[in-house]
Amino acid sequence: MVFWKSLFSSSDTATASKPAPVQGELVDIPGANPAQNNSRIFFSLDRDIDLYELEELCDAVGWARRPLRKVKKAMQHSFLVVSMWQVRGARKQLIGFARATSDHAFNATIWDVVVHPDFQTQGLGKALMKYTIKKLRNEDISNITLFADPHVVDFYARLGFISDPEGIKGMFWYPN
Amino acid sequence: MVFWKSLFSSSDTATASKPAPVQGELVDIPGANPAQNNSRIFFSLDRDIDLYELEELCDAVGWARRPLRKVKKAMQHSFLVVSMWQVRGARKQLIGFARATSDHAFNATIWDVVVHPDFQTQGLGKALMKYTIKKLRNEDISNITLFADPHVVDFYARLGFISDPEGIKGMFWYPN
Repeated sequence: MVFWKSLFSSSDTATASKPAPVQGELVDIPGANPAQNNSRIFFSLDRDIDLYELEELCDAVGWARRPLRKVKKAMQHSFLVVSMWQVRGARKQLIGFARATSDHAFNATIWDVVVHPDFQTQGLGKALMKYTIKKLRNEDISNITLFADPHVVDFYARLGFISDPEGIKGMFWYPN
Repeated sequence: MVFWKSLFSSSDTATASKPAPVQGELVDIPGANPAQNNSRIFFSLDRDIDLYELEELCDAVGWARRPLRKVKKAMQHSFLVVSMWQVRGARKQLIGFARATSDHAFNATIWDVVVHPDFQTQGLGKALMKYTIKKLRNEDISNITLFADPHVVDFYARLGFISDPEGIKGMFWYPN
């Protein structure tokens, strides 16, 4: 949590208006960073996220709880972990998350994309995905995939994701 | 290549009828292991595969060539690499391959499943997939996914893979 330490450790009056250190990246989203309430949205690639805070975010969108031990392991072994934070004065809140598995060469698959309900319909999900795609492209990953629930297929399509391209089908195997 | 070394290094008369060391696993497939020609089919999890031999296998099924540097990186960063070998006397041939990316906790995605055309329609693709699934299940991965070309959707369906379960769509993003 180097990013947050450097933002908040010096004094209680530290605010997000300081330049963001390397680990965090300020996002300017029209309407989402209202100057009047002194809030800012940041992205971070730091995977040392408080698992209880992440669980709270996932609870907020109604996801089934998962063992934190396994969540921790999954974070460690993801190729990319992106978190989205709202910073207001000295307060920070985890408001979005996405991660990707990858072979570090050809393919990446994006999992666990979530935006807190209070922050939806402001373009933040789109910004989170664009940031995630940009980071994967920076690593020269050419084939970015995901499995979309029916109600978010259109959301991903607007971002340029194609369903079943050339008839390729996403398939799942579950234990009996 | 410890497995093959131990099979072949002692003398020219070493044969596959020796017990397989840990790295290789003998597969008994009806009709695929004819005793009369002294051939056996083995699976291996050793990821130190000759990349030229792998390229030859992929050439045989008409896949576009990929930079070996990236193939090597992808192998290193795959969660699981399964290779399938025919051993006849002192000769071995790579006849099948599959690999999976994973977060080591929840999800695995299987890529690059290939069986040499001379060895297809003998149940070896099915055996390769069952072995791959078994190894992923042994690691407590519950969500096994893949993206299937149209002509192999039925093959995977027979193995228990479900297309678009509950309307979940596989989606791809490609660079412009």
